[in-house]
Amino acid sequence: MPAMEPSVLFERVALIGIGLIGSSLARVIQRDGLARSIAVAARTQATLDTAKALELGDTFTLDLSRVVEGADLVMICAPMGAYAAIANTIGPALKPGAIVSDVGSVKAVAIRDLRPHLPAGVHLVPGHPVAGTEHSGPEAGFAELFQGRWCILTPEPNADASAVERIADLWRRAGMMIEIMDAVHHDAVLAITSHLPHLIAYTIVDTAAQLEEDLQQEVVKFSAGGFRDFTRIAASDPVMWRDIFLANRDAVLEILGRFDEDLTALQRAIRRGEGAKLEEAFTRSRAIRRGVIAAKQA
Amino acid sequence: MPAMEPSVLFERVALIGIGLIGSSLARVIQRDGLARSIAVAARTQATLDTAKALELGDTFTLDLSRVVEGADLVMICAPMGAYAAIANTIGPALKPGAIVSDVGSVKAVAIRDLRPHLPAGVHLVPGHPVAGTEHSGPEAGFAELFQGRWCILTPEPNADASAVERIADLWRRAGMMIEIMDAVHHDAVLAITSHLPHLIAYTIVDTAAQLEEDLQQEVVKFSAGGFRDFTRIAASDPVMWRDIFLANRDAVLEILGRFDEDLTALQRAIRRGEGAKLEEAFTRSRAIRRGVIAAKQA
Repeated sequence: MPAMEPSVLFERVALIGIGLIGSSLARVIQRDGLARSIAVAARTQATLDTAKALELGDTFTLDLSRVVEGADLVMICAPMGAYAAIANTIGPALKPGAIVSDVGSVKAVAIRDLRPHLPAGVHLVPGHPVAGTEHSGPEAGFAELFQGRWCILTPEPNADASAVERIADLWRRAGMMIEIMDAVHHDAVLAITSHLPHLIAYTIVDTAAQLEEDLQQEVVKFSAGGFRDFTRIAASDPVMWRDIFLANRDAVLEILGRFDEDLTALQRAIRRGEGAKLEEAFTRSRAIRRGVIAAKQA
Repeated sequence: MPAMEPSVLFERVALIGIGLIGSSLARVIQRDGLARSIAVAARTQATLDTAKALELGDTFTLDLSRVVEGADLVMICAPMGAYAAIANTIGPALKPGAIVSDVGSVKAVAIRDLRPHLPAGVHLVPGHPVAGTEHSGPEAGFAELFQGRWCILTPEPNADASAVERIADLWRRAGMMIEIMDAVHHDAVLAITSHLPHLIAYTIVDTAAQLEEDLQQEVVKFSAGGFRDFTRIAASDPVMWRDIFLANRDAVLEILGRFDEDLTALQRAIRRGEGAKLEEAFTRSRAIRRGVIAAKQA
């Protein structure tokens, strides 16, 4: 067997799920020649056909046992509610020494659902590339999606260091910065930065969706005043987000409780006409924005 | 006196307030030669100096009585909390036949605060160009700000039709589409499309601002998951928004009540693990997004 070229990180990558993230990663791997072959699995034939038409891999199948055959990396890019069933199916078919990784937004549950089904000698490296758009499906992906963003890896304490490093390297090639974090801590941070904002955006857009028909049309028409930004966030994949809220229930409910207190305080200030309190809270928020800009995440 | 060139809509425009909206309008008027002269007033000498350095007008003063002298259009672009005092000061100095208009986000209160101070023979045309960015101040303005957006005018039932048409024409030249609406109805629509989204964004960012220092830094670092969009909205001018919430109190509290019910329902669904309910609400929200895109307001 010839020595690997420097760019090749894996012999055979299996992608389970080929939506926004999976298809974007496929494009990165193809662009930079990071694997000798890509095997793609999807839940539906329609998605698989789209992925095939887009040439996002070398082989395509609905059979999860087959897609992982001979793969040294199995990357799970599916909604989190399917993790346990996926792991249960692929477990016996995994190649010894293979790395199983994922891109899910909640890490404690990812470990809980994947770990029991993986045989000894297979490495688990849970990951979360913090990147995305409001679009979904294989056609929505693009190789630049990850550029300049953070990828958080949450390996277990006894994880194989070289397996972690190989996954870190993959995401670095995609343009990401790497952070290693405890899974539970990850879930608390993301509950604030991602899960609560999505829940709020979904709620406010749903509030509008339940207005009388004529008022609803006006809301859409005059959405440029702030509402349209929420509709963009609330256009993300409903199944993916359903699973995220169920998977990160405790952390989301905890931060939601704090948010609710703060909203009630502002509501009271409005009712009582306490302008100084409003101005003070609004001014405090500006400082956080400056932090986001300084961190180059704006 | 020579006949007016076709482009000239007003002899002399007085701008009271020269922030994001005022300075953007000044640039439109200058670009297209819509007025023979622009007189600029600001609340502070610092702002006035900036406006002068940017050459946003022909004359500059802190004196509101002087700025409206000889003006056939007085456009108020100041925080709404200052309206009554502004109108009280400029009232006696207004030229007979002059049009007083404004750009404030709440229209019933605009009429309440301006109307009593305007002499007979002066026309009031309340307006709201629904456009903006998170930046404020004279340097933040640009002529293209209004392009393709809606301007809502809320004239009183007995308003002078030709005065309304002249203001409509001004905003059309700025690239806006015009909608005529009852002031109270405007305030109800904007409470949903603009005021509630800003209140929510301010709240969630403020919730983060009150977290422990180390967690707060991580929130900023990993803000790309949704939070950063809220920080952008919550970076808007605190004084302007304080005044908007105080001015549109009843409509904001009414829609906030509905939002709160909907959020509580989703919170309960998360707590109980009711995935179907979550997915249903999230799917409903997508339809609204399609409406926003179809209405070319995305």
